[in-house]
Amino acid sequence: MTVKSISDLFVHSLSDIYSAEKQMTKSLPKLARAATHADLGAAFTAHLEETQGQIERIDQVVEACGIRLKRVKCVAMEGLVEEGQEQIDEIEKGPVLDAALIAAAQKAEHYEIAAYSSLIALAKQLGETHAVTLLSQTLKEEKATDAKLSLLAEEKIAAEALGR
Amino acid sequence: MTVKSISDLFVHSLSDIYSAEKQMTKSLPKLARAATHADLGAAFTAHLEETQGQIERIDQVVEACGIRLKRVKCVAMEGLVEEGQEQIDEIEKGPVLDAALIAAAQKAEHYEIAAYSSLIALAKQLGETHAVTLLSQTLKEEKATDAKLSLLAEEKIAAEALGR
Repeated sequence: MTVKSISDLFVHSLSDIYSAEKQMTKSLPKLARAATHADLGAAFTAHLEETQGQIERIDQVVEACGIRLKRVKCVAMEGLVEEGQEQIDEIEKGPVLDAALIAAAQKAEHYEIAAYSSLIALAKQLGETHAVTLLSQTLKEEKATDAKLSLLAEEKIAAEALGR
Repeated sequence: MTVKSISDLFVHSLSDIYSAEKQMTKSLPKLARAATHADLGAAFTAHLEETQGQIERIDQVVEACGIRLKRVKCVAMEGLVEEGQEQIDEIEKGPVLDAALIAAAQKAEHYEIAAYSSLIALAKQLGETHAVTLLSQTLKEEKATDAKLSLLAEEKIAAEALGR
């Protein structure tokens, strides 16, 4: 990491979220398979498609800013994915695991919300207006996914998990 | 991890955030020392005190619900702390590092925001109203810290980092 300027920090942070999104594309199919409630499985599958679009959007940011991504591994997302995997391994398939999967996925979403918010702030500082627009679209999607998961947890999974 | 019910999941998730908060109490003094801008150092120090209060609040939740925490290590927070440490190690002290520290801290805050939001949802399902009140106080503090850091990044650090 050779970060000496805000521009370097932007490239590093973008490379980090690129790694995080790539990890998500491997994690989401596992979450979808582990889910019992059909709506939850569908939500993870839909978010996988969205994530692929978000990766393409990062490529567009790279092009718009005329930068090159660094090869970095997002260690934080590694921990988040590991946490989700632990729950899949140790909780029996059913509504309780569904509730745990939602919580794990929301932590990953919040990682991305924080990351994109910081990236947008940096892009604004750098006057990269097209990047701001692109990154803001992704941020909006991440927030919508988080809200969708909250609603699923409250409306569909909760009653089943409590055996009502 | 023996998680078979929503109640077990609540205990497990509370144990996880307890570990995360404990890790934060070790990480925040390092962030404070690495910060250059006095307001940022002060913000990290203030959040350290707040975090200690949040740990006490977890103890109160434990008592209110009549549960016992498990010994778990929050691997996700480990990754988040490592990410912050990498930046301290590799970026020269100054406004660019300050911007990086803010972004790292906001990722940790968002982890906690997601964790407490899920805990509140679980506590509601379990009818643990006192726990809901306590956890909601902490959630409010975490969101306020996140907002305070955003403001610091925008108003104070940005101009310096760009050498304006």
